[in-house]
Amino acid sequence: MSDEFSIDLRVYIEDTDAGGVVYYVNYLKFMERARTEYLRSLGFPKPALLSDELITVVASANIDYKKSAVLDDALIVSAKAERTGSAFIVFRQQVKRRDENGNEELLADAEIKIACVNRLTAKPARFPAELRAAVLADRGNETE
Amino acid sequence: MSDEFSIDLRVYIEDTDAGGVVYYVNYLKFMERARTEYLRSLGFPKPALLSDELITVVASANIDYKKSAVLDDALIVSAKAERTGSAFIVFRQQVKRRDENGNEELLADAEIKIACVNRLTAKPARFPAELRAAVLADRGNETE
Amino acid sequence: MSDEFSIDLRVYIEDTDAGGVVYYVNYLKFMERARTEYLRSLGFPKPALLSDELITVVASANIDYKKSAVLDDALIVSAKAERTGSAFIVFRQQVKRRDENGNEELLADAEIKIACVNRLTAKPARFPAELRAAVLADRGNETE
Amino acid sequence: MSDEFSIDLRVYIEDTDAGGVVYYVNYLKFMERARTEYLRSLGFPKPALLSDELITVVASANIDYKKSAVLDDALIVSAKAERTGSAFIVFRQQVKRRDENGNEELLADAEIKIACVNRLTAKPARFPAELRAAVLADRGNETE
Repeated sequence: MSDEFSIDLRVYIEDTDAGGVVYYVNYLKFMERARTEYLRSLGFPKPALLSDELITVVASANIDYKKSAVLDDALIVSAKAERTGSAFIVFRQQVKRRDENGNEELLADAEIKIACVNRLTAKPARFPAELRAAVLADRGNETE
Repeated sequence: MSDEFSIDLRVYIEDTDAGGVVYYVNYLKFMERARTEYLRSLGFPKPALLSDELITVVASANIDYKKSAVLDDALIVSAKAERTGSAFIVFRQQVKRRDENGNEELLADAEIKIACVNRLTAKPARFPAELRAAVLADRGNETE
Repeated sequence: MSDEFSIDLRVYIEDTDAGGVVYYVNYLKFMERARTEYLRSLGFPKPALLSDELITVVASANIDYKKSAVLDDALIVSAKAERTGSAFIVFRQQVKRRDENGNEELLADAEIKIACVNRLTAKPARFPAELRAAVLADRGNETE
Repeated sequence: MSDEFSIDLRVYIEDTDAGGVVYYVNYLKFMERARTEYLRSLGFPKPALLSDELITVVASANIDYKKSAVLDDALIVSAKAERTGSAFIVFRQQVKRRDENGNEELLADAEIKIACVNRLTAKPARFPAELRAAVLADRGNETE
C-alpha cells in the first residue's frame, strides 16, 4: 500500500493532438497540478507565487514517455519529493492510466527540479523554512 | 435553488498569463470541460469523438468577460443546454468564482453552439438520437 | 486589393486536437497574435502590458467557425480595428487558409472587443492617447 | 559562424504565466516548432504525421532552464540532430533571447529524443529511409 500523494485527472480534448493522443508537453502540466495540490495539502495554498518576493520556478525536467494517454482516459498523477535543499526540491512524478477494472499502467515518468527565486532579481533564494520543514516532515512519514 | 449542471475547478499556473489573471481563451477550455462532464453525466462518455463517423465541433462562441480569475481561485463552471436541433445544441455557460465564505461572483458568460459533423466529409450530421433525447429529457427535468 | 493588416502562420501539432483539426480555442490565440503585431506595426511594442498601470484585456469575443484548419496548413490571420472608443477597440478578424496555388478559404470570422483597464483596480481606463490616435489614423488610411 | 538550423519567435501573452515569464512547458512547444521547420527544410512537409501508418512521437525530454523569457522577447530556437538510429533521432536544442543590439543569451538547453511509431499498434517503427538519409546528409554538411 503506497501513501504517495496523487491526483486524479480526466483527459479532455484540449489535452490531445492530431496524433490522437495527449500532446506530450501536457504531461508536464498534469505533473505541475499534482505538485501544486501536494504543497496545498501541506498547508501552502499558493505554491507558485509564494509571496510578493518569492516565486517557484522549474529548474530542470527529465521525462520519459512510455505509452500514450488518449481522450477520456482516467489518469493518476503522483508527486513525491525525493530530495530537498534550501533552494530546491526534486520531485519524482509518474502519470498512470487507470482502466475500468482499476488496473494501472505507467505512461510517463519524470524527475522535476523546482527552485525558489527572488521575483525581482530572478536570483536563487531560500524556500520559506516552514515549507521546507513540511516537505521534510511529510517524507519522514512515508512508508518505505 | 438551481439544479443547473456545473463542475468545480481550481486555477493553476498553466491557466494564467503575464497580466496576472487567467488567460481569457482558457475560459473556453473550462466551459468545454463542463459540457463534456454534462454529457458524460447523461451517459455519453465520449462526447467529443462520438463514433468513428461523428464528431462534435464548436460552431460559434459568444463570450463576455466581466471580471478576471486569478491563480488558485476556486471556480464553478456551468453548462445548460438552452436550445437543441437535430444537428446542434446551444449551451448557456457561466464561470463564477467562489470565495472562502461560499459567495459567488460572475466572471464570464457565454453562449456556445456545438454541432455534429461527419468526420470524413466535415459536413453537418445529426446527433445520435439517444444523445438528443437525453438532453431534451434533462431539460424537461429542470426546475425553472 | 486590400491593405488589411495580416500575419502568416503555420499550424503546428501543438495547435491541433484528437479530432484531427486545429483546436477551436486556438483560433483566438492566432487572432491575438495578429492584433499584437498590428499594434506593434503602429509603434506599440508592448500592447498587452501597456505600462506599469495599464493593461489590455479582452472584453468580449464573438466567433463563428466555418471550416477547420489541419496540421501544417498555411494560415492568414487579419486584424482590422472597426470601432474605437476612449477605453475600447473593436476588431474584426478572420482566419483564412492559403492553399499551394495561393487560393484563400475563410475558416473563422470574429469580432473581438479589447479594453484598457487599470492593472491594480481592474477598472476601465483610457487607452494612451497616442495609441488611439495611431489606430484612428491607420483606419483613415484604409482603402474602402 | 554556425550553420545550425534555427527559427525566430516572438513571445506572445499566450506563452506567459502569472509569474510574469514564459510558462516553462512552452519552451518545449518552441523547440518542437524548430524541429518541425528543420525537417520541413529537408523536404519533409508533414514531420509529425509522416504517413497513414507512421507518426513521430517524443520518447524523452531533458531540459535545463537557465533564465526566463518575458513577454515580447525575440527568441531564437535551434534544432540540431546529434544522433540518429533507424527508429529515433536525438536533438540538441537551445532557446536564446536576442536583445536589441543583437546580443544573445541562453535561456534553455534540451536534449529531445523523437521516435517513429506505428500509428495503429503504437510499436516502434523505422523512420522512412529518405528522412534518415536527409538528416545524416545534413549533419555531414555541418561545419564543426
